[in-house]
Amino acid sequence: MIYADNAATTRMDNEAFEAMKPFLLENFGNASQPYSFSRAAKKAIKQARSTIAECIAALPEEIYFTSGGTESDNWAVKGSTLLCGDLSETITSEIEHHAILNTCKTIERLGFPVSYLTVDSAGIIKPDILREKVSPKTKLVTIMLANNEIGTIQPIQELCSIAHENGCLFHTDAVQAVGHIEIDVKKLNVDMLSASAHKFNGPKGIGFLYIKKGTNLPPYLDGGLQEFGIRAGTENIASIVAMGVALRNNVKNIDQRYKELKKLENILISELSKAKIDFIRNGTSLGLPGNVNLSFRDVEGEMLLHRLDLLGICVSTGSACDSKRTQISHVIKALRIPDVYGKGTLRISFGKDNNEHDALRIAKELIRIINLIA
Amino acid sequence: MIYADNAATTRMDNEAFEAMKPFLLENFGNASQPYSFSRAAKKAIKQARSTIAECIAALPEEIYFTSGGTESDNWAVKGSTLLCGDLSETITSEIEHHAILNTCKTIERLGFPVSYLTVDSAGIIKPDILREKVSPKTKLVTIMLANNEIGTIQPIQELCSIAHENGCLFHTDAVQAVGHIEIDVKKLNVDMLSASAHKFNGPKGIGFLYIKKGTNLPPYLDGGLQEFGIRAGTENIASIVAMGVALRNNVKNIDQRYKELKKLENILISELSKAKIDFIRNGTSLGLPGNVNLSFRDVEGEMLLHRLDLLGICVSTGSACDSKRTQISHVIKALRIPDVYGKGTLRISFGKDNNEHDALRIAKELIRIINLIA
Repeated sequence: MIYADNAATTRMDNEAFEAMKPFLLENFGNASQPYSFSRAAKKAIKQARSTIAECIAALPEEIYFTSGGTESDNWAVKGSTLLCGDLSETITSEIEHHAILNTCKTIERLGFPVSYLTVDSAGIIKPDILREKVSPKTKLVTIMLANNEIGTIQPIQELCSIAHENGCLFHTDAVQAVGHIEIDVKKLNVDMLSASAHKFNGPKGIGFLYIKKGTNLPPYLDGGLQEFGIRAGTENIASIVAMGVALRNNVKNIDQRYKELKKLENILISELSKAKIDFIRNGTSLGLPGNVNLSFRDVEGEMLLHRLDLLGICVSTGSACDSKRTQISHVIKALRIPDVYGKGTLRISFGKDNNEHDALRIAKELIRIINLIA
Repeated sequence: MIYADNAATTRMDNEAFEAMKPFLLENFGNASQPYSFSRAAKKAIKQARSTIAECIAALPEEIYFTSGGTESDNWAVKGSTLLCGDLSETITSEIEHHAILNTCKTIERLGFPVSYLTVDSAGIIKPDILREKVSPKTKLVTIMLANNEIGTIQPIQELCSIAHENGCLFHTDAVQAVGHIEIDVKKLNVDMLSASAHKFNGPKGIGFLYIKKGTNLPPYLDGGLQEFGIRAGTENIASIVAMGVALRNNVKNIDQRYKELKKLENILISELSKAKIDFIRNGTSLGLPGNVNLSFRDVEGEMLLHRLDLLGICVSTGSACDSKRTQISHVIKALRIPDVYGKGTLRISFGKDNNEHDALRIAKELIRIINLIA
């Protein structure tokens, strides 16, 4: 099998699995209990928090463990608006993940205004567009760091400055970016940042929200006093530990892997071009490493996905979270590419297990299938 | 070590661990993707949903996976009130877990009224108290099935009838009860029920909310189309599978284990009584099996906990989620027991790994410590 859907989820790092095992089996104590048996769990959580903080240049006490990217996004947006009872405006973009977009729809339904910024044809949010929209009525700006479908990376530092100049909070959904490109929250200067472990070779069902020290965000999950009193629920120790190991291992080799993945992208693109396949590459070549989002002319993306599946190749049409919708995704629509290409969209996302052979094979099979139906 | 804090968390079932392993390592595909590689994950989730449904007499499509009891409780309460924008009243009890109480405080702060029912000295909510309080202005009644500190089991069926006669929704936090006493949601007739896997020998960070077919509850985590479109977030396949196995195994032997645990309770109580220790047993002997909540006269519960810890015995003073608060817990306060006993409260909670030797040893050490300081 060739697994080239690493943007949907990744294979867990072996070391991360080994690290989680003792906390599933022997050291099962509740980390909130005061007895010695829970000491190992408490220590492991503390260690994981430090490791994760270090990987994004944050302080340990700025990392709050959640059940994943979706919860982190819901917390950041609803926490800043709905749970503050603050009817000020939220600004987001039209290419956000549904964890942001549907959260925004919910707060809109409840009377909290939301504005949606457009993107250019490469999927980039121009700072001027935000500058025009932001006003003293704006409370929160939430813009993703990198897009999950097309891999474009937004100018977060600049967007964040604009938000701050206007006294707004800035949140970024970095679920697709953490562990894949260098992230320095101090440089970016964001107030909140969402991440999810299974996107960087950690387990599913765990993630975190970075909350800059001094940011006033009410809890989203009310209950016990875990996570410095603002995110309740018995600590998912094993998964927290595994997330720490996975992120550390990914960040360690981030530059080397960037180069390797860009090479795979280039092989795929150049093979398709050499074969004179008619396609548009969505996003830019400077996007997330390994992400290749292509729209083929007069082809059905679904058909390509299923034919590749029969050959043991896993790729995607749009986002996995959205796989039950089969029309053109909101991200591809936002790029305003011609309709004859839109339906033929395929996302190939390479990860650290892929090699040149995989890229060549995918190119070869795509060329064969497309030429067959032409 | 004698682990007698099974109300805080439980050791994971070995079979549950073995069942989760392949979904952490090999079958890591995103369950929402359409290719064949994700088929095993999809099938395993479906199987777990059926198993869990069967264990509580629900339909599979009435089981929604969450990150645990806290999320389930937040969803049930905020979903029915805050997210509906419905300013009708919520009724709860003063002995709920903080996942309910603090959620109620949040909605109160945002203008949604909440009433708190008192309990009798055994920690039981008398149906008449609810009957007096419920009115056409009530939207939701949320009362726990069994208390996490003192183990009392509420007359849910009767309380639920009263709520329904008045056109209200009924939710029960059954986190402490599922997997330990027989639960039949059809008999109880509740509209929503919360559960958490790590309380019944499953992994931490996973749980579910039962939502009766036809109940209109908006999503709490907005995003992708997972969980029938009302609970977003990439499926935590490994933990879902493990939860299914753990619950099935616990429910299989529920009657036998009930008897065994009641026997351990009796050993502990009778040893203490024989030694003429002055204590009150909080709750009733018909509560959750294995739960023994004792208030010792003129003793500090904290001191008992730490002395037992030095002897390798894990017990608790109150709830683990609340372990950072050291004053008398809200549950013990609600029982209105004399102050000279209140501070000396200790929760010993036996589980399936405990035996008679453990009960005798705990009794022996307690007697020794208490007589020493007398």
